[in-house]
Amino acid sequence: MHIAEYLFRRLYQIDIRAVFGIPGDFNLNALDYIEECGLNWIGNVNELNAGYAADGYARIKGISAIVTTFGVGELSTINAIAGASAELVPIIHIVGFPSAIIRENKLPVHHSLADGDFELFMKMSERFSSATIILDDPSKATKIIDDTIIQCYRSSKPVYIGFPLDMVQVDIDPSPLEHPLLLRLAASNFTDAEGAATKAIQDRLSQARNPIIIVDRPAGRYQTLEASRAFVENSSLPCFCWPMAKGIINESLPNFRGVYGGSVCSKEVREQVKSCDLILLLGNRPTDLNNGGFKNHLPDVERIVFQQNSVQIGENIHTNLHLGNVLGSLSNTICESPSISSPSSPPSGMSSPPSSVGSGEESPNFPFKESGQSVGDSTIDPTSAVTHDWLWNRIGSWLEEDDILAMDVGTSSFGGLWCRYPRGVQPLFQLLWCSIGYAMGATVGAAIAAREQEQASEKPLRRRTILFTGDGSLQMTAQEISTLVRQELGPIIFVICNDGYTIERYVHGWDKSYNDIQPWNYQLLPTVFNPKPNTLRTYSVRTKGELEMLLADDLFGPAENFGKDNPEPLRLVEIHMDKHDAPRTIPDTLAGLHGKK
Amino acid sequence: MHIAEYLFRRLYQIDIRAVFGIPGDFNLNALDYIEECGLNWIGNVNELNAGYAADGYARIKGISAIVTTFGVGELSTINAIAGASAELVPIIHIVGFPSAIIRENKLPVHHSLADGDFELFMKMSERFSSATIILDDPSKATKIIDDTIIQCYRSSKPVYIGFPLDMVQVDIDPSPLEHPLLLRLAASNFTDAEGAATKAIQDRLSQARNPIIIVDRPAGRYQTLEASRAFVENSSLPCFCWPMAKGIINESLPNFRGVYGGSVCSKEVREQVKSCDLILLLGNRPTDLNNGGFKNHLPDVERIVFQQNSVQIGENIHTNLHLGNVLGSLSNTICESPSISSPSSPPSGMSSPPSSVGSGEESPNFPFKESGQSVGDSTIDPTSAVTHDWLWNRIGSWLEEDDILAMDVGTSSFGGLWCRYPRGVQPLFQLLWCSIGYAMGATVGAAIAAREQEQASEKPLRRRTILFTGDGSLQMTAQEISTLVRQELGPIIFVICNDGYTIERYVHGWDKSYNDIQPWNYQLLPTVFNPKPNTLRTYSVRTKGELEMLLADDLFGPAENFGKDNPEPLRLVEIHMDKHDAPRTIPDTLAGLHGKK
Repeated sequence: MHIAEYLFRRLYQIDIRAVFGIPGDFNLNALDYIEECGLNWIGNVNELNAGYAADGYARIKGISAIVTTFGVGELSTINAIAGASAELVPIIHIVGFPSAIIRENKLPVHHSLADGDFELFMKMSERFSSATIILDDPSKATKIIDDTIIQCYRSSKPVYIGFPLDMVQVDIDPSPLEHPLLLRLAASNFTDAEGAATKAIQDRLSQARNPIIIVDRPAGRYQTLEASRAFVENSSLPCFCWPMAKGIINESLPNFRGVYGGSVCSKEVREQVKSCDLILLLGNRPTDLNNGGFKNHLPDVERIVFQQNSVQIGENIHTNLHLGNVLGSLSNTICESPSISSPSSPPSGMSSPPSSVGSGEESPNFPFKESGQSVGDSTIDPTSAVTHDWLWNRIGSWLEEDDILAMDVGTSSFGGLWCRYPRGVQPLFQLLWCSIGYAMGATVGAAIAAREQEQASEKPLRRRTILFTGDGSLQMTAQEISTLVRQELGPIIFVICNDGYTIERYVHGWDKSYNDIQPWNYQLLPTVFNPKPNTLRTYSVRTKGELEMLLADDLFGPAENFGKDNPEPLRLVEIHMDKHDAPRTIPDTLAGLHGKK
Repeated sequence: MHIAEYLFRRLYQIDIRAVFGIPGDFNLNALDYIEECGLNWIGNVNELNAGYAADGYARIKGISAIVTTFGVGELSTINAIAGASAELVPIIHIVGFPSAIIRENKLPVHHSLADGDFELFMKMSERFSSATIILDDPSKATKIIDDTIIQCYRSSKPVYIGFPLDMVQVDIDPSPLEHPLLLRLAASNFTDAEGAATKAIQDRLSQARNPIIIVDRPAGRYQTLEASRAFVENSSLPCFCWPMAKGIINESLPNFRGVYGGSVCSKEVREQVKSCDLILLLGNRPTDLNNGGFKNHLPDVERIVFQQNSVQIGENIHTNLHLGNVLGSLSNTICESPSISSPSSPPSGMSSPPSSVGSGEESPNFPFKESGQSVGDSTIDPTSAVTHDWLWNRIGSWLEEDDILAMDVGTSSFGGLWCRYPRGVQPLFQLLWCSIGYAMGATVGAAIAAREQEQASEKPLRRRTILFTGDGSLQMTAQEISTLVRQELGPIIFVICNDGYTIERYVHGWDKSYNDIQPWNYQLLPTVFNPKPNTLRTYSVRTKGELEMLLADDLFGPAENFGKDNPEPLRLVEIHMDKHDAPRTIPDTLAGLHGKK
């Protein structure tokens, strides 16, 4: 079997069904193997978009793969790889490499600096990768491929596989394929260290009167995702999540209380957090926009900090353990001993009016003024402009179970992370790397992944892919709509048309022209990509009433109205809003960054 | 004066009038200073396009500047910076940086990996930059800025200036601004070493019976461009250029004989090169696609190799000299001693039939079959498809003096580099880095530069900007057409619509679907960007006759028909061609790469 076939068959084995990327002369021969290994080649429009798409796919499926070419290809996508590294997203990046004869003779080939250095680009990616290898030794190829894939999965970070042209069709022994890769750590590995840690946690918990859980992003790594969810559900402890952890915990659980952003959170959430006497930090990765500007405002009580391979209780650190095993053991124990869990308080629902109105200092529907009721039900003026205060809770009510919600950096993410999600909703966003334009690319990858999940599901499954993006963000990666058309995908794209980079206006340059952009006709854009008849619908709304009509339109949204015989069309909606309007979480977070809160 | 103002005033002093880039929160405060320093802020659509635009601008104006933001911005443009490094294009890359308090406290800020490392991205750019600095010490700021700009210019490579947010508004002493930067080396620095080298060259030349000059790209660096041109003109020696050097030498000179691509060149050129007895290599930078695949096929005769700081005659190397000074001295001597120059042979014009027809082995209009006559004049069938064999010499005849001709990698560059250019035509292309999509971004920068040159010129000057790009290439960076619209620029864009990556088909995958692309409606695309009325014209041609009519149309092309009161509209032309048709230079070069020639 050729090395290329082995590589792509391994990808198939770990449930990858689509490979992203762009052809280039150093990778063409490898691309020949993709289809025959049962994978779909998704030729993206450019490499940065391909990287974002691989990121979105990995967040849904668990891992992904992208192929680019030496130099020009890999460097064009490196920002996406860096973002995946920062945000802990596992991507297998295969880079077509010049052959040994070129490297050894330091030949001045195209796509290089003509200085004989063939490792310099790889070394850049190395800073973002948990493993960086060149397949230059056939005798080690299968082992290296396997180890690298495992490392990708376990580290939840990108890996880099340089694939020289002269290695593509070299024969190797494929027998390792008979043994599927052991990606997850076996649950039976429960060790003494894990037992000791579990007992220490149980003891501490039993002493606490009002323990709470705050979930952070690392708890959502695939190795520990299910264990984290089970622990939260079984414990029944009041559970909050940092903004970056949005989507990890099922928000319809009775014990889910809302997003806690340090200095940015609702009054109710703040009071609940303040009144606890023990904090279980399930994953801990403080970053500026995750904690409302470095000030996590956590009360001065003891903490149990759960990380991938350690648990710290107060000053005592337990190491040499796997988080999933510890959480699994705790989940079982908690189920058996209901006395450990606190009585559950009523959930603070954000999509319906709370039972007690706040002091008037802030909205009960924090961070928005409106509760998300539809226009017809309330005193909301349908002819008034769409505002962030109204939009996000309204969208929260409109979301359906299992939706995928991509939100670009800006008003979209700072709004969409703060409404309550139905069960199974999976958000895609960057709150650390924050690269604008990311979300369109991620939407492409996620939509492909969602379709695969729907097709593979035994029970009926419908997952809509929904994108909210600012206009400035959309322009950055707009051509990837062409891939949605080419792949016949039908996400719903909402474009916040507010004349530029609104989040930047809040940072600096409120009315400066450098925060303006060229106004595009977004409704016309998808037509450029030649969609088939009846596969595209575009809209433009300016008022709450207009958006309301759209959300209520059976032809527009509900997943149940579409299926195999009536596939979802690509839908694009321009939502026109004031350029100075933004969710208050933006100024609140910026104030937190500058220590003014 | 604030550091930001000093920096941008220095840019103005070195004749930069436009700054490219994208705003981000780490650079917004710096952007405030741009307009007040007399510069135009060109807000591009994304950072990679901005980098390509800065590259195109620098190739026309001599140097350029781009502003991006830490992490997400700089990494998005790094492929353009790498290309500028490979192709020796000087770009001043200013990167908005986090403040000292963030760096020193290793705070986990957005746009970082949250690991406290603020130098890792800079170190990546360092591999492509001749100087890499952070402006973190006000007492050294002005000197560092000045030294870095000088280094950029003299090395003809990018430089990197990290500009922390807390440095933007720090006061410094601006008095160095009173002394313009000494970018070029003073001509009066004629040294003994240079004198010795000059004499040695003159002696060798006087012994040669049939010396020739072959010009390579490094001769075109701004420090030596004029000296190189004067030397070629004054010497009257038969002069050829490698493909990468296209545009350096005025092709209407009597002694210019054509492009020499090693194994890829016309029969006449090959015979003239073979029959020489001394080769002056004016600049020497062999790369695979420049020399027809590493085989430069030069005859085994002595060579004089001219580099920036050395001249090698046979085995003897003269160092410690400046090429411009040596060439200047040689030019003067040659003018005085006409006996050194060979009698000039008739030029081998490629845009008209040669006096002697070849052996039948290859076309006299090499590398094309047709001579470039207009359809009406000849036996060319106007209803037949546009072919590369006809197109490029026809375009060569249609070009006007001082045109800028951007060609993306692929059929465009492998065609457009081989037709004869009128005086002053300046091509933009990458034949080493070869990043597809480059040419659209470069067109934006070049068009802005051309307009500046027209406005600043004392004599009437008209420079059209013309782009030839493949469809796959265009899709990569298509959104930058929005900047053409926003800046009210009127280049002529020809899109070779041939259903995908044709040059890749010739490498591998003749009919493979990974070399296909989604078909776009390119005529519709610019309309998405909301051009003002009467500023856009689009066309679609499929036959030679249709293209001929367009080229003959007064409303379409001739520069003289447009001016201040009748500005050029943006024109986009789809040229539909067969996906397997290509200039023969593509298979010829690929054969050379694989040693089959």
